[in-house]
Amino acid sequence: MKFATYDDGSTDGRLYVVSSDHARAVDASAITPSLLSALQNWREVEAPLKRLSEDLDANHSPVGVLFEPRLCLAPLPRAPQWCDGSAFLNHGRLMERAFNTPPIPDFETIPVMYQGASDDFLGPCADTPFVSEVDGIDFEGEFGVIVDEVPMGTSAQAAANCICLIVQINDWSLRAIGAYEMPRGFGFLQAKPTTSFAPIAVTPDELGSAWSDGRVALNLHVARNGERVGSASGAEMAFSFPDLIAHAARTRRLRAGTVIGSGTVSNKDRAAGSSCLAEKRVIEKLDLGEAQTPFLKFGDRVEMEARFADGRPGPFGRIDQRVVGTR
Amino acid sequence: MKFATYDDGSTDGRLYVVSSDHARAVDASAITPSLLSALQNWREVEAPLKRLSEDLDANHSPVGVLFEPRLCLAPLPRAPQWCDGSAFLNHGRLMERAFNTPPIPDFETIPVMYQGASDDFLGPCADTPFVSEVDGIDFEGEFGVIVDEVPMGTSAQAAANCICLIVQINDWSLRAIGAYEMPRGFGFLQAKPTTSFAPIAVTPDELGSAWSDGRVALNLHVARNGERVGSASGAEMAFSFPDLIAHAARTRRLRAGTVIGSGTVSNKDRAAGSSCLAEKRVIEKLDLGEAQTPFLKFGDRVEMEARFADGRPGPFGRIDQRVVGTR
Repeated sequence: MKFATYDDGSTDGRLYVVSSDHARAVDASAITPSLLSALQNWREVEAPLKRLSEDLDANHSPVGVLFEPRLCLAPLPRAPQWCDGSAFLNHGRLMERAFNTPPIPDFETIPVMYQGASDDFLGPCADTPFVSEVDGIDFEGEFGVIVDEVPMGTSAQAAANCICLIVQINDWSLRAIGAYEMPRGFGFLQAKPTTSFAPIAVTPDELGSAWSDGRVALNLHVARNGERVGSASGAEMAFSFPDLIAHAARTRRLRAGTVIGSGTVSNKDRAAGSSCLAEKRVIEKLDLGEAQTPFLKFGDRVEMEARFADGRPGPFGRIDQRVVGTR
Repeated sequence: MKFATYDDGSTDGRLYVVSSDHARAVDASAITPSLLSALQNWREVEAPLKRLSEDLDANHSPVGVLFEPRLCLAPLPRAPQWCDGSAFLNHGRLMERAFNTPPIPDFETIPVMYQGASDDFLGPCADTPFVSEVDGIDFEGEFGVIVDEVPMGTSAQAAANCICLIVQINDWSLRAIGAYEMPRGFGFLQAKPTTSFAPIAVTPDELGSAWSDGRVALNLHVARNGERVGSASGAEMAFSFPDLIAHAARTRRLRAGTVIGSGTVSNKDRAAGSSCLAEKRVIEKLDLGEAQTPFLKFGDRVEMEARFADGRPGPFGRIDQRVVGTR
């Protein structure tokens, strides 16, 4: 199943089911008003939503409309929690060199994860406002999962059954502030403003064999102003999504609708490029002596789209956003 | 005005207005269903809620019930965000000695703040479950404010006008995990499980002159198993709540209902005692060579109540919780 959220003026938006080919969508709010309410009642609404999805794909639906990503909010405009890991070791190691910080102990065996704000997620085509270019505006291409209720202390094995949906994420980051906040030990706050999402949240079966070992084995194509920055594979996660869920739930329960992120998708193979500018810049610094690529400027465009290995577009649709100033 | 939230089975609970003397409460859901919805429509509902409050205090209300804190959820069972500062410098300095970490740069001039989970706030008398005593279970007595919508980049001066309500908080902490997470730079995640709230959220006028310079000038009486741990004053904050709000909103907007915390209330005057066990333990270590006070055990009771300087109970009611194991 594929889901999108249309803006109807409400806090959580209105749930739509999207056709397999992304051509059409149908209002699902007669079954449950929003994607959040669907997740809160997943066992009850899964079957009727599935029938609606099958009807839409079979062309039986009387009320389908053309699917228009520009009208979409984030699949969840607000979520109970947003916990973002850093599960691609290559990214972590490069960031240590970028920020000149000591290696994180146990980085390869115990996940690191930060708590982000989850009240103001942006849709795939929303302009993203920032107060200042001086803060070092950057994107981070990621994958994520949305879970059902997860009890405190759930094991990774059990956590696998709590994954309802998979999403594609741009975790906006302010690098100058991150370098300031990180050594203070309280984590990222000002360094992590809003987070953006591709329009379509999908059940794991939509990925076919690309949902593998609790990882999203798709290539995340990332471009800035039309120019390729990277196309790294999500398969190279050191920790699976069930591992990350178990880490998040170690001392707390996670309410249905919590989003767990992979951290920036990053591959050891340099040919894959990068899913954020900070990584590209540190590689330039290592290779050329100094960073060549500037951070984002107001007016810059950021596009992200997951694709299958054969080049077919992935199931999430595209992120296509512009960076804007608040003034 | 004084507000409490009763459990009606819904995610956000049902809004009640509480009488000045905390003896009675009246269902306010005909005006707006929940405290969250009230905050989202503050300008519209403030006047009718005020009339209901005045009627209740004048004994005109036909539907008042006995106020029963044990039936209360947290005033906001979920909030858009929970951003917790560390505005009492005495606490910060003692924590550095407790965890043997280097002094945080600019600690006295720029607030530090972490992002906490805001989807699972506990009520004043709810048992609080933990997986293991080995994690170093501790409480942190705090004050907090709940804000109206705050635009990105709001100044501290403007932020003062965004404060709708004041609350009293127990920010549960797991010290063994905090010592592990802090040096990793991603902030507190497992170290900060759920957060608990006194039953009554109040408008600033309810504090009278104890709402002073953007600070809560009340003494926070904290006891473990009936034994006093401390009664430190909230007046000693190095940063005001408007300062903390402006810090949180520097690169993001805050949605109505966001909770901003003071961090552990702590005074230089040793006679004030402590609002958490970690502080008490480090003072013992400095004075006696080793910590004497153990962290919390399953079955322990934690009470917190703000009081005016003359000993009268403050406006928030009491936190009275028991620590329990999940198994």
